Amino acid sequence: METLGVALGNRSYPIHIGRGLLERPELYRPYLGGGSAAIVTNEVVAPLYLRRVREALKGARVTEIVVGDGEQTKRWEVLESVFDALLAARCGRDTLLVALGGGVVGDLAGFAAAVYQRGIPFLQVPTTLLAQVDSSVGGKTAINHARGKNMIGAFHQPLAVISDVATLETLPDRELRAGLAEVVKHALALDLPFVEWLEANMPKLLRRDHESLVRGIKRCCELKARIVAADEREAGVRALLNFGHTFGHAIEAGAGYGAWLHGEAIAAGMVMAAQLSKNLGLIGDSEVSRVSGLLGRAGLPTRGPALAPERLMELMAGDKKAARGKLRFVVLEALGRAALRGVDDERVRQAIVAAAQ
Amino acid sequence: METLGVALGNRSYPIHIGRGLLERPELYRPYLGGGSAAIVTNEVVAPLYLRRVREALKGARVTEIVVGDGEQTKRWEVLESVFDALLAARCGRDTLLVALGGGVVGDLAGFAAAVYQRGIPFLQVPTTLLAQVDSSVGGKTAINHARGKNMIGAFHQPLAVISDVATLETLPDRELRAGLAEVVKHALALDLPFVEWLEANMPKLLRRDHESLVRGIKRCCELKARIVAADEREAGVRALLNFGHTFGHAIEAGAGYGAWLHGEAIAAGMVMAAQLSKNLGLIGDSEVSRVSGLLGRAGLPTRGPALAPERLMELMAGDKKAARGKLRFVVLEALGRAALRGVDDERVRQAIVAAAQ
Repeated sequence: METLGVALGNRSYPIHIGRGLLERPELYRPYLGGGSAAIVTNEVVAPLYLRRVREALKGARVTEIVVGDGEQTKRWEVLESVFDALLAARCGRDTLLVALGGGVVGDLAGFAAAVYQRGIPFLQVPTTLLAQVDSSVGGKTAINHARGKNMIGAFHQPLAVISDVATLETLPDRELRAGLAEVVKHALALDLPFVEWLEANMPKLLRRDHESLVRGIKRCCELKARIVAADEREAGVRALLNFGHTFGHAIEAGAGYGAWLHGEAIAAGMVMAAQLSKNLGLIGDSEVSRVSGLLGRAGLPTRGPALAPERLMELMAGDKKAARGKLRFVVLEALGRAALRGVDDERVRQAIVAAAQ
Repeated sequence: METLGVALGNRSYPIHIGRGLLERPELYRPYLGGGSAAIVTNEVVAPLYLRRVREALKGARVTEIVVGDGEQTKRWEVLESVFDALLAARCGRDTLLVALGGGVVGDLAGFAAAVYQRGIPFLQVPTTLLAQVDSSVGGKTAINHARGKNMIGAFHQPLAVISDVATLETLPDRELRAGLAEVVKHALALDLPFVEWLEANMPKLLRRDHESLVRGIKRCCELKARIVAADEREAGVRALLNFGHTFGHAIEAGAGYGAWLHGEAIAAGMVMAAQLSKNLGLIGDSEVSRVSGLLGRAGLPTRGPALAPERLMELMAGDKKAARGKLRFVVLEALGRAALRGVDDERVRQAIVAAAQ
């Protein structure tokens, strides 16, 4: 088992990465002081892993809450059903909430933990690659709003992250690839040697080589932990982790939530962001090709859906990264070095058009 | 104008108390860096004060959001309408939200600010006595759930509190009295000389003597600021400010939200809590009489609604102050000195019965 830390003062926490961690009681025990726990998971993950986690929590009073699968689960009505189940089971402020599942479950359950009785403790137990490398770390929680993704949420740090790579064995190929998009994102934004490692090792990751997965997940968590420690609430440098996300969120919304997986939209969004970086004179054609080449080798889309550039522009204007009317984008100054820039609309439109060709 | 501070490190903030503060642009200007503001108020307060606040915000882009009046406004559907209005107006993360109104508006708008785009800055501009002495200070925000009051919420501190006592001139008598319940609560829980001052000055407060109101509000804010600075998230001493609230919440829920004002329910709840303290041997009959006498002179109910004690017990069992099955209550060790105790159900039942006689 590999363990690293997120340094946030008295809210610091460990990330454990390894095989078979899900069922190890000693990883949960330090957080069960209240004697009560609630596992939030979904209908796909529950038959696979719920029993093991419940057994690892033995000794505690455990409430099980199973929600639906997919991005459309991140909405108020589902959150309300989680509150209802917690209240029906008389879960108090000392109940430990365990988020068992992918990014959707982690975001939803994490937000439930953030606002239930003004905040209860929680653990992230991510079971998808996307959640293990990204969404389970750093305390971002949210649900979607009809007018935009992740519009309602909170920063609420978990007490620990327990990443069991054995759970990736049951992950559908499409979701594995979507997770790889976030792995690539960390590398492109922050770490050139990691880009090079990914270029060399993508086939191993795709065939779920255990050692390569642990190494890739650990590197992402290290990079993200450093950023989160420096800027927990995204006032500055943390925004760099949104590389590809302004375009990506617009793609997700434009295609209809759920049609594209988050990682797929981010992949196409990263190509657009790379193209934008090139149009701004920051990188050259060869870097743009390396970005789309790496994503292509991960089996990810490198072009957006068939949507008019104007529609994407319109969707991005409502994105929360818009500040004072001018859209801000994470661009690449080099592979492995992202930066935040305000960009004129026309440049953005050109990048969307160029990325589609 | 009197100004005092809530000491919370880099989230410290001032509380301004005085006459005519609502319309003073210089009190808002320091917080308008983003150039965008949204005023959340209700249909009763809007015709009285919205224009003045809007004018004080001149120079900023201002969105106005008017919700319904009353406790039933503190629910998800209304919150959702606030998010909708913020998103439709393209309010970003740098929008300053201004909560203009009583406790309901402050709780609802404060919670909206806590979770809109994972948190935006906000100001409390309380226009009721209850909000000025209690709910606007300390960062507690929430909405209600069908199964309990304030069950969904967050700790989110305002950037400042602007308490204009001139707004109390339009406050209905019943609401003024409900606010006095929270004034009495601060005194009974924390400050014997303040109890004595209230016993001497209640008539002046009831006839809205300006100087007495400022003095009473300031003392409550001082007491509360000290407690909040020591225990922002209610892990310990802050719970003392819930004197009368465990009973009070059950009364509110049992009578149907809105039938009793919060302050009225708290008043009857404080008599029950005083009776409980007597049953535990902490205080004597004379102290219980002083509690009910002071509340009676404020024109507040000193008995709960016609509900079976068992029904109140049942409602309290779902209250968030229940920990590990045993109900915890704020009791009085003396007038002006509250303490937290775990209490057996039978004692609680006896106190409810005794307080009804």
